[in-house]
Amino acid sequence: MLRIITDKGEAKQELKRIENRTHNDETHIQESIVKEIIATVRKHGNQALFDYTQKFDRQTINESNLKVSGAEIDTAYQQISRDLLSAIKLAAKQIEAFHQQRVPKSWVSFPTDGVTLGRRYTPVDRAGLYVPGGRASYPSTVLMNAIPAKVAKVPRIVMVTPPSEGAKINPAVLVAASEAGVTEIYRVGGAQAVAALAYGTETIPNVDVITGPGNIFVTLAKKEVFGTVGIDSLAGPSEVLVIADKQANPVHVAADLLAQAEHDPLAAAILITDYLPLAQGVQKEVVKQLENHPRKVLTEKAIAHYGVVIVTENLEEAAQLSNLFAPEHLELEVEEPWELMTHIRHAGAIFLGNSTPEAVGDYLAGPNHTLPTSGAARYASALGVETFMKYSSLIEYNPHALQKVSNAIMALTEAEGLPSHGDSVKLRINPDGKP
Amino acid sequence: MLRIITDKGEAKQELKRIENRTHNDETHIQESIVKEIIATVRKHGNQALFDYTQKFDRQTINESNLKVSGAEIDTAYQQISRDLLSAIKLAAKQIEAFHQQRVPKSWVSFPTDGVTLGRRYTPVDRAGLYVPGGRASYPSTVLMNAIPAKVAKVPRIVMVTPPSEGAKINPAVLVAASEAGVTEIYRVGGAQAVAALAYGTETIPNVDVITGPGNIFVTLAKKEVFGTVGIDSLAGPSEVLVIADKQANPVHVAADLLAQAEHDPLAAAILITDYLPLAQGVQKEVVKQLENHPRKVLTEKAIAHYGVVIVTENLEEAAQLSNLFAPEHLELEVEEPWELMTHIRHAGAIFLGNSTPEAVGDYLAGPNHTLPTSGAARYASALGVETFMKYSSLIEYNPHALQKVSNAIMALTEAEGLPSHGDSVKLRINPDGKP
Repeated sequence: MLRIITDKGEAKQELKRIENRTHNDETHIQESIVKEIIATVRKHGNQALFDYTQKFDRQTINESNLKVSGAEIDTAYQQISRDLLSAIKLAAKQIEAFHQQRVPKSWVSFPTDGVTLGRRYTPVDRAGLYVPGGRASYPSTVLMNAIPAKVAKVPRIVMVTPPSEGAKINPAVLVAASEAGVTEIYRVGGAQAVAALAYGTETIPNVDVITGPGNIFVTLAKKEVFGTVGIDSLAGPSEVLVIADKQANPVHVAADLLAQAEHDPLAAAILITDYLPLAQGVQKEVVKQLENHPRKVLTEKAIAHYGVVIVTENLEEAAQLSNLFAPEHLELEVEEPWELMTHIRHAGAIFLGNSTPEAVGDYLAGPNHTLPTSGAARYASALGVETFMKYSSLIEYNPHALQKVSNAIMALTEAEGLPSHGDSVKLRINPDGKP
Repeated sequence: MLRIITDKGEAKQELKRIENRTHNDETHIQESIVKEIIATVRKHGNQALFDYTQKFDRQTINESNLKVSGAEIDTAYQQISRDLLSAIKLAAKQIEAFHQQRVPKSWVSFPTDGVTLGRRYTPVDRAGLYVPGGRASYPSTVLMNAIPAKVAKVPRIVMVTPPSEGAKINPAVLVAASEAGVTEIYRVGGAQAVAALAYGTETIPNVDVITGPGNIFVTLAKKEVFGTVGIDSLAGPSEVLVIADKQANPVHVAADLLAQAEHDPLAAAILITDYLPLAQGVQKEVVKQLENHPRKVLTEKAIAHYGVVIVTENLEEAAQLSNLFAPEHLELEVEEPWELMTHIRHAGAIFLGNSTPEAVGDYLAGPNHTLPTSGAARYASALGVETFMKYSSLIEYNPHALQKVSNAIMALTEAEGLPSHGDSVKLRINPDGKP
């Protein structure tokens, strides 16, 4: 049952509790396990991957099938329906078009005589993409992670994903990988796969950036190897916050909440409305839509633990509460969504109006669906082309320009007690410095 | 003594050793200490800060002096020279001008009828800036961290820095903070200050992003709180790689190497040249310039352990070796620096030509001096305005546009086994979905 809260203080407490739903005391133990896995992969390479895959996934992999073959990808194309293939192609096309729109570009400027400053953008050499297995093995994850790397012109895009029964990989995932420009796929998952991407093995190349969602072990492994490689973010369970007013349709809002809850028992689904009858209507609709839901148990669990409806005085108050929570997904099912948007300070993605369910963005609108969770929207953004690029600052001074700033640099090097910093300028100004 | 290496295999090994110079076995113990400090600050707030400051910095702080007062900042302006004040002002002006040049801007696009997509950029609410104490208490650090936050229009810029003897703060640091737009300063450092910024105490507000360099405890604390807050990077000791050809001046190159080495016994100073006489000239000059160096012991140590000259066949090979190392600072003291630059794939900042010593960029050219270290330039960039901003993706579909993509979304939701995702679209298309 979806609870309704009308008290503001209680609402804030509840949002805090939901935001912190992944904090638990087991992390310390999980961290030790992850550290051991990483150390073992660094030491034993492929063999460690084979052993852990036997142990955790109960699948047999070895040198001959660690890398997914071209034949296996060809077969995958035969295994999926024509409809699914064209949907994957449409999604890939639209995601690529969106990500092409603002690719960082190198530039230089000439602020004063004899000075050139700028930025030169380059892609990383190798990107590593983690794709979960089992229940969360999604072709859309592949598209959303690989296409930005492709747009960034990353030469090698390396994907890892754990094998299912019979050491198989979901064919839709293989097709998506092929369509998205993944250059190689390895049949391994978990913290061991992250370790392989960070440090390399006999077969798997070490990469520069690792992206993609995963369970707690994958996330802890990404945090552990961060610094050796770049990572996109520390993904937590998914969440949606819907702000809706009296013109919203409770049937649609209920479906939107359930579309989040059905992901994971830890998923959060929050509605904030200024209209009590809508709250009540959604509450009823959720029960109704859950009746024959194929993922009923899991979804009900998420709704019971991390579902809530908050009724506020007005929509501005709703926006304030949303800013406190900083949701991954924010739907504005209100009369004037663009006006309300100006009150939003933190959200991973904003879905405006009544006919923009989150699913549109999850699959094919174009913007990335890999978004900051658990309040990270306060400081982080979606995965993007930028995730796979970096820049070098460019600085050139001619002798005259250096002369002009030399006194100021000298004053600063003296204040900081760094004599050779000063010498590196002084010796260039003073002709006595010539050899 | 600066060693000269001419063997390519040995050169690669040596660069690898230098890159990994911060890897050590003590990290595990240090991590436990840092975790304990963070837990204690979360539990005891200010009192934990006072206790740790007594223990680690041997200074007494309390509720009355934790926050630096306006009067103390006024006094600092009296304590520094006019020359230093104008140097700080010039640097602040130029750093601000550079960072203003490419501030991320919100945008929308209309890819097809009835579809609006875009990005909306917003600053974080609060930025936290760590400034080291003691030997590494630099006004330039303050400018380089605070000005991008100011340009991003972050409402609160919170600085922490450990107290020196008499619980004092370096006056040049206080002046720089004031000039750069820092809104509040707290007299506390170490892992405890990072914990305070991440979780807040009775006096210090919790922030959204923590930036700034620090010792190993500060760096480990930043890694630990990453996910609760954003961080800039995991800063290691500084490094320079100079590529120079026969027209370079050995006196200048030697000064450039020493300007890096004088920072820290772990600093790295590498020269790669295609001209053996330059290698030999620089080797001699380093000895000479070290003779009366005020930081001789420390600087000699860095040069002995992490200084090296590599002689290559040609400059392209030099660029390849540089790409392997991915240096924080790269100086190109060659005839055609812009041409050689096109062979560079990874570097935090590139200083082009003979009259652009790194010190120009360290202090006042404008680009940020907070750069990726220890090979992180393979995937990361300088600190920037972007560090203090994030965006929300914007998506709006009208009913007609939603209808057009509904079949494709359905195919994908079915493939992923997420029925409510499908319902959230289907119920909007099918008029029976109306309440």
